[in-house]
Amino acid sequence: MLTIAVDAMGGDNAPQCVVEGTIQTLRETDNRLEILLIGQEEKVQPLLDAHDTQGLNLRFMHAPEVITMTDVPAIAVKTKQNSSLVRGLLLCKEKKADGFISAGNTGALMAASLFILGRLPGVLRPTIAAYFPRLAPGLTNVVDVGANVDCKAENLVQFAEMLTIYQRDAADMEKPLTGLLNIGEEDNKGPEVLKQTYRLLKEADRKNKINFAGNIEGNDILSSKVSIIVCDGLVGNTLLKFGESIPEFLSSIFKPSLKELVVSGKLDPEAAELTGSAFKKMFKPFDVERFGGVPFLGVDGISIVGHGRSSAKAIMNMIYMAEHMIEKKVNQHIAEALAVT
Amino acid sequence: MLTIAVDAMGGDNAPQCVVEGTIQTLRETDNRLEILLIGQEEKVQPLLDAHDTQGLNLRFMHAPEVITMTDVPAIAVKTKQNSSLVRGLLLCKEKKADGFISAGNTGALMAASLFILGRLPGVLRPTIAAYFPRLAPGLTNVVDVGANVDCKAENLVQFAEMLTIYQRDAADMEKPLTGLLNIGEEDNKGPEVLKQTYRLLKEADRKNKINFAGNIEGNDILSSKVSIIVCDGLVGNTLLKFGESIPEFLSSIFKPSLKELVVSGKLDPEAAELTGSAFKKMFKPFDVERFGGVPFLGVDGISIVGHGRSSAKAIMNMIYMAEHMIEKKVNQHIAEALAVT
Repeated sequence: MLTIAVDAMGGDNAPQCVVEGTIQTLRETDNRLEILLIGQEEKVQPLLDAHDTQGLNLRFMHAPEVITMTDVPAIAVKTKQNSSLVRGLLLCKEKKADGFISAGNTGALMAASLFILGRLPGVLRPTIAAYFPRLAPGLTNVVDVGANVDCKAENLVQFAEMLTIYQRDAADMEKPLTGLLNIGEEDNKGPEVLKQTYRLLKEADRKNKINFAGNIEGNDILSSKVSIIVCDGLVGNTLLKFGESIPEFLSSIFKPSLKELVVSGKLDPEAAELTGSAFKKMFKPFDVERFGGVPFLGVDGISIVGHGRSSAKAIMNMIYMAEHMIEKKVNQHIAEALAVT
Repeated sequence: MLTIAVDAMGGDNAPQCVVEGTIQTLRETDNRLEILLIGQEEKVQPLLDAHDTQGLNLRFMHAPEVITMTDVPAIAVKTKQNSSLVRGLLLCKEKKADGFISAGNTGALMAASLFILGRLPGVLRPTIAAYFPRLAPGLTNVVDVGANVDCKAENLVQFAEMLTIYQRDAADMEKPLTGLLNIGEEDNKGPEVLKQTYRLLKEADRKNKINFAGNIEGNDILSSKVSIIVCDGLVGNTLLKFGESIPEFLSSIFKPSLKELVVSGKLDPEAAELTGSAFKKMFKPFDVERFGGVPFLGVDGISIVGHGRSSAKAIMNMIYMAEHMIEKKVNQHIAEALAVT
């Protein structure tokens, strides 16, 4: 039976949502997994007591410290060795857990994962991807979204290779297509590092390690043209945060004008409510909850990070993601593909 | 009297919209300017004949060749010396025109401007900015959006300096605030080149050349926090194209659900139409028409490029922008500020 360690203290809604997500997962899966919940006893135990946890494969482990969302990652990891985040990863390292999930401080999780779990053989730099909206079925991952800046061509190519394996194994996509995010489609476009990356991606395609669609541009991101979009962490991180700010920006224009229509008597309140729902629904493709989180790919273990706003449902999906990645041997396949030959 | 050369053949709606915009400008300004319209006689003359142009300060100049939107800039500029785009810039160089505007091939306009007009003294690399939406009054420029990749720290700082002068002089903003687009707000964040840029921007701030707000992140772009956002052309170009793709992406979700509400009888058609208008209005801050175009800053002349979709109104605003930049001596101030001392 797999044991998944769960950071009870990670995320804006922790520990409440984490406890709920954990219990729901165990119920839904009929105890297929064991979950090891880690956090501050005084905060987590009362929440556990409020549920009927008898018969569930649930263990609790006390961790007195908490890494907060505002902690500086490198410092927090060093100084808060008794935090749920560090302890969870240590359990993975000691093979007492098969995977770890957290909706906490992303930077700290990456730093601690790299430090504690280490890299898989052949991996130059572990990476983190994000899910971007699309209309067509399937999924779009942008990689890297902030774990790595100053990426070399070799790093970017490995990101494409790792994501290809992840999408193939964990998302059951037969031939995930990779695009290189650039300022033009022609093969000689862009910064030097991307020209070089283009050539290496072509080569990786010839070796059947990836399926390369060539350069893509900013307006192709939402177009479902490719499922893997490769870029430096600076570009990916900026796009991710820019994209996340759009629903609120547009709502702050649309909602008042809808209200104005109601106040002026032009639109009846029921119609406004219906339209408001359609408007809200429109941002559903922006909602990453259905995926739960993203794995930190390339480390020697399973480490999954969720959005700070993660709900119980997101926590559940993160646990399932960990389970699925272990069962599908994603890390083993990455190590095989990237092994220096 | 100022003479503005106008590329009659540039843009998706050329020459129709360009001719209309030109004539409207001359009428609106009571012949304050002289406009020199350049293009293929067989296409432009019939359009001019359809209007009453008598008494307008309008001259027409035949240019047999056209640089299209799909032409490769560097090649087009070399091989199409008799195009409206090249001829217009040559007129500026020869001081027969005071400025040139075009809604044509942006890459070609930049290449030709650089080649024909040359750089202002002290300018390392001319740059092009874009207007981004904001809710607060004022404007947000992201710079660079594709003219320059592989930017050095010195280049990025000059972009900030040039935009500061442009916003101050041409947009009457008293103290334009600059933000450096990065993956985090702390001053030691990001790629090496941005760490160095951060230090140089601080220095430029101390010298009162710019007003530096520090690092900003992707979610600050739409927030009106700063009016100048500095980044490499790869980042800016990607953001611009990504942003431009969003209205269509969201409309393709919202419109069908609105239609569904009507078809199912839940929403009456009039209410749907009202809501549809509010929805459309929501994207108004994304509409750059009110600005018309953007100047290619740092070249020794006035060269303004508009969106391929430019309407007659956008053409008018581009002509006004050229006039305003000349009157406010933007280029002279850039040369003074950036002169190597």
